[in-house]
Amino acid sequence: MSALIDQLTARLPPKSWTADPEIMASHLVEWRGRYRGNAPFLAMPSSTGEVSQIVSLCAEAGLAITPQGGNTGLVAGQIPEGEVLISLKRMNKIRSVSTDDDAMVAEAGVVLKSVQEAAESAGRLFPISLGSEGSATIGGLISTNAGGVHVIRFGMMREQVLGLEVVLPDGRILNALKALRKDNTGYDLKQLFIGAEGTLGIITAATLKLQPRPAEHIVAVVGLDSPYAALKLLHHMKLETGAVVAFELMNAFATGMTLVAYPQLRNALPGWNGWRVLIEMESVRAIGLRDVAEQALSSAMEKGLIQDAVVAENHAQAKEFWRVREEIPAAQRTQGAQAPMDISVPVSRVPDFLRDAEIAARNVWADLRVLAFGHAGDGNIHYTVMQPPGPVNEDFWKACPALIEAVQDVAVGMGGSISAEHGIGVSRREELPRYKDHVTLDVMAKVKAALDPKRVMNPRALT
Amino acid sequence: MSALIDQLTARLPPKSWTADPEIMASHLVEWRGRYRGNAPFLAMPSSTGEVSQIVSLCAEAGLAITPQGGNTGLVAGQIPEGEVLISLKRMNKIRSVSTDDDAMVAEAGVVLKSVQEAAESAGRLFPISLGSEGSATIGGLISTNAGGVHVIRFGMMREQVLGLEVVLPDGRILNALKALRKDNTGYDLKQLFIGAEGTLGIITAATLKLQPRPAEHIVAVVGLDSPYAALKLLHHMKLETGAVVAFELMNAFATGMTLVAYPQLRNALPGWNGWRVLIEMESVRAIGLRDVAEQALSSAMEKGLIQDAVVAENHAQAKEFWRVREEIPAAQRTQGAQAPMDISVPVSRVPDFLRDAEIAARNVWADLRVLAFGHAGDGNIHYTVMQPPGPVNEDFWKACPALIEAVQDVAVGMGGSISAEHGIGVSRREELPRYKDHVTLDVMAKVKAALDPKRVMNPRALT
Repeated sequence: MSALIDQLTARLPPKSWTADPEIMASHLVEWRGRYRGNAPFLAMPSSTGEVSQIVSLCAEAGLAITPQGGNTGLVAGQIPEGEVLISLKRMNKIRSVSTDDDAMVAEAGVVLKSVQEAAESAGRLFPISLGSEGSATIGGLISTNAGGVHVIRFGMMREQVLGLEVVLPDGRILNALKALRKDNTGYDLKQLFIGAEGTLGIITAATLKLQPRPAEHIVAVVGLDSPYAALKLLHHMKLETGAVVAFELMNAFATGMTLVAYPQLRNALPGWNGWRVLIEMESVRAIGLRDVAEQALSSAMEKGLIQDAVVAENHAQAKEFWRVREEIPAAQRTQGAQAPMDISVPVSRVPDFLRDAEIAARNVWADLRVLAFGHAGDGNIHYTVMQPPGPVNEDFWKACPALIEAVQDVAVGMGGSISAEHGIGVSRREELPRYKDHVTLDVMAKVKAALDPKRVMNPRALT
Repeated sequence: MSALIDQLTARLPPKSWTADPEIMASHLVEWRGRYRGNAPFLAMPSSTGEVSQIVSLCAEAGLAITPQGGNTGLVAGQIPEGEVLISLKRMNKIRSVSTDDDAMVAEAGVVLKSVQEAAESAGRLFPISLGSEGSATIGGLISTNAGGVHVIRFGMMREQVLGLEVVLPDGRILNALKALRKDNTGYDLKQLFIGAEGTLGIITAATLKLQPRPAEHIVAVVGLDSPYAALKLLHHMKLETGAVVAFELMNAFATGMTLVAYPQLRNALPGWNGWRVLIEMESVRAIGLRDVAEQALSSAMEKGLIQDAVVAENHAQAKEFWRVREEIPAAQRTQGAQAPMDISVPVSRVPDFLRDAEIAARNVWADLRVLAFGHAGDGNIHYTVMQPPGPVNEDFWKACPALIEAVQDVAVGMGGSISAEHGIGVSRREELPRYKDHVTLDVMAKVKAALDPKRVMNPRALT
């Protein structure tokens, strides 16, 4: 280590950092192994004061910082390339839970699952739910404005945040950890840090909104002919039940591939080989939601919107139905060369997107498979084009950038986004000039320069 | 007019501005007559391009701008003092309504009531509802992050906005008018302009979220012994009905004063002289909400949370119940010297605030009346201390600043805010240094300087 680093670490509390390669190793590799980085040392602060101290010293020394939460990100924003790595994992206390305020104060390193459980213990719901909930942390989830399966009802992570505590790029602490529902006394600064991917400061704690716990919970899987039918079904179910909390579309290949890869999973609709939608419904009050859901599905069938439907008999079966959806990404990784994307379009354009994206992709590479699944109720499709079955096709890998461009151009042409929930991080930064107009990019750069003029915070990410 | 102004207006489209004092008059006076301003001319652009042109020319000429919507603000942010006044009222088109997207694109000058009606015509709900909805405009409502009575269920204006179109302080157009539910491709710049009170740019149009229309709608008024009981009732009703969309607390004086001032109004609880809560409940699906509400109120009575309750028989009666709540501010203005405040505290602290604020106020001026009403379900109380009945007491007016400081200190001491929904504008800017910490104020100033370095946009407001 350089003298500068030695001088800096000498001033830190002994337990708050390490340069031990064994401890650092797991923090320097992205969880899928796609990105590997390096850092002069790993800071592991256990308090906001320690974060402030480390950031101050780094800023003074002219050293940049990469903040890291649960290291579950998909766009390399959490992997340092020579920056000081700050893991928030030791800041893992739930500071308070208030049922009178329907609010919880959690530190950045608290894992999402722990937040869900603490809410449940208090008779409340924390509604964010996503694949990596067992390791993703609150700080990372806020910094990346995480989405997941319940956005249609509860919004993204942004909408769950009442207040934030942030260490600014110069080490000062911005305390906006209020539990207020309403506060119009100036710019709502917390909004700046939500989704900023650690480029404007380090989130150290948050006041999170809690919801009433649902009394009833119903999961159904339906088979239908097309995404156009799915769009009609979405509005039908929203209006008929008033209870839709998840609406997950899967193409035939998504379900088929997953059921082949994991034969122990339960096929909710064994006779159906077309599009499926998993619909989750919840009611705070017991209203006989099963009957409501079944009636709504019956009338959907009468209207010809769906061809088949099954409602989970109980909680265990509901979990089984979800498993097929949840295991798609794992099954996907066994399928060879592929270009995965995280598209959103206005909800109304999801069917058109699915039609036009496939045409555009096949213009680049005719013989491919399309995997399409995701949060269609929010207009968010995890869209992947894949090589045909067989050994890994290196030429297909080479065509992936062109395929991605072709599909993303379709999405953006429909007023869509190239990253609905995964963010930009480091790995997708070069795509921004193609898809964001120069006024937007200029304002983003101005905000970055105003808050972090020395580019201390996650300098290779986003801006 | 000066030569500079002449040069500038000569370059504007003829119909897009006026210096006619008669036309300008109503725009230069705050609606209650508390603030009167002046402006070299009034620009009335009818398109985003015209706004851009006017702002560019002003910025080049070094002239500052005050943007104005429906002129319903309470903090003088919309009244110019020599700045060029830009009224957005002629930008009053609803550009599109999409039920498939549950979204509407409305220009800044569209009045809230028109947005509500357009949503209703499409079989949807736009949930923001507030006293000035017949004249307040979308641009102003977004610029001030308006609240109103349904925040408890739908959030503030911020949460209704999917996308924005903004003219920046240099005249460039930021087009972020997307209808996306999810878009993590950089800083969510629209958040900067929401609640910025026109200090960072002029909002010219917005994509607004629409909600399903409720099938059932119930309004009840209850009598109870204390705000502590009201807090328990809030959570009881939320959990028992899952349908609470408004929860308005009124102290005995608020209802009594209003019923005396407007004897034609209907007293929902003629035998009750204590605290009241108006509870509004809605259900997207018909679930027999009246029975649900009545059962929940019965069990609240059994638990001793409430002393009396009446459920409106029909829509007309529901409107009558609301009227008493809605007319409080008008009745209030007849009561002589007074210090009105717009407080919020964490919901759990509302009862403590009401207790401690009165003690603090009486320490300043023993013989006073307390008017307390508002959105208790969100922790937002419109709190006013008033002179005793009788002719206007000039000494009480003089004591108002000290009274306001005493009450606001109590709120902020509880983690509260001095402006829950009315904003800061011009009239409250001097209070900020007392109630916001210097780090927050510094970051606000940095954001302002980054986006509007010449202080073109509403320079006397907020920052």
